[in-house]
Amino acid sequence: MAYDGLIQQLIDELGRLPGIGPKSAQRIAFHIVQDPHYDPKPLGDILDRIRDVVRFCTICGNVTEQETCAICRDPRRDHRTICVVEEPKDVAAIERTREYRGLYHVLGGALSPINGIGPEQLHIPALLKRLSDPNVTEIIIATDPNVEGEATATYLSRQLSVYDLTVTRLASGLPVGGDLEYADEVTLGRAFQGRRNLGT
Amino acid sequence: MAYDGLIQQLIDELGRLPGIGPKSAQRIAFHIVQDPHYDPKPLGDILDRIRDVVRFCTICGNVTEQETCAICRDPRRDHRTICVVEEPKDVAAIERTREYRGLYHVLGGALSPINGIGPEQLHIPALLKRLSDPNVTEIIIATDPNVEGEATATYLSRQLSVYDLTVTRLASGLPVGGDLEYADEVTLGRAFQGRRNLGT
Repeated sequence: MAYDGLIQQLIDELGRLPGIGPKSAQRIAFHIVQDPHYDPKPLGDILDRIRDVVRFCTICGNVTEQETCAICRDPRRDHRTICVVEEPKDVAAIERTREYRGLYHVLGGALSPINGIGPEQLHIPALLKRLSDPNVTEIIIATDPNVEGEATATYLSRQLSVYDLTVTRLASGLPVGGDLEYADEVTLGRAFQGRRNLGT
Repeated sequence: MAYDGLIQQLIDELGRLPGIGPKSAQRIAFHIVQDPHYDPKPLGDILDRIRDVVRFCTICGNVTEQETCAICRDPRRDHRTICVVEEPKDVAAIERTREYRGLYHVLGGALSPINGIGPEQLHIPALLKRLSDPNVTEIIIATDPNVEGEATATYLSRQLSVYDLTVTRLASGLPVGGDLEYADEVTLGRAFQGRRNLGT
């Protein structure tokens, strides 16, 4: 035996979540069962409903509980710019910067032939369809700065070259607050390539 | 905004679990929402029911779904020996060794004055009550080999000295498969103190 009945089922189900190993699952399960300050029902209720409630915006692919997401519906956002990201969590990360006031397009991943993800598996047709709106003037490609994200950016920039649009890519360079000495060579090389004129 | 409605609630609730930070909570939440192979309803259902179903054995304090746990009910176990542990997960750890066939007593923690845990907060009276059973001949103290666990072991051994019982403590020493060079001084010192005669 490991444990009687339901607590073992709880450990098993927690262990199916990403990043939770057997020891963490056990620790979390006992917290759920034993901690007098913890009520597991709200989480249970959310898990029961989440798949029925959460949908993906029919315009941009971001998570929402309605037909379209709050950003696509917001008339105060700049509808001329579309920032292309891999995942909904990238939208949240960019929103936290408060630097960007345009729209988004969530691809649902990045090109990765080794994992069987080609252009057909990403929401690229929906993006191209949005470009028929003559208001759109700039596409900012904000895929991750890794192999898959760069490949996706290259692929997209080629697809978008036939449109009369400004296509940009987020800058690569040294992270703010970082230490030049510890930057990897590729990042440091990009920082040189992308150096800015300070003007005088 | 971070996210619309329920997904933010899901992230918040996941973040309340021990060892899950905001980034992990977000990652797990999107796995729950997006992964086509994952069904969140079983976990939701378990969380809704767990507090009503899981109880603590009225004899030993281990987790169970009945009045008493499977170990206390098992007539094939050796009812003469009680192994005293801090938590139900220690019972599971000892059971995995398949070395021990006696009973358990779960204290529900260890003495820790700094956290306000004194003898009254632990299931010590229930343990002493079990000693009125004349069949019991040995108490094995298997609290953790750290400051709190050692203090608890010392306290218990003093409490138990008035009974006509063998009171033992799990051996401290080098972990099997470990490297002598990397053992800390206290552990290595204990390994010397507890050295065994190999006989000839």
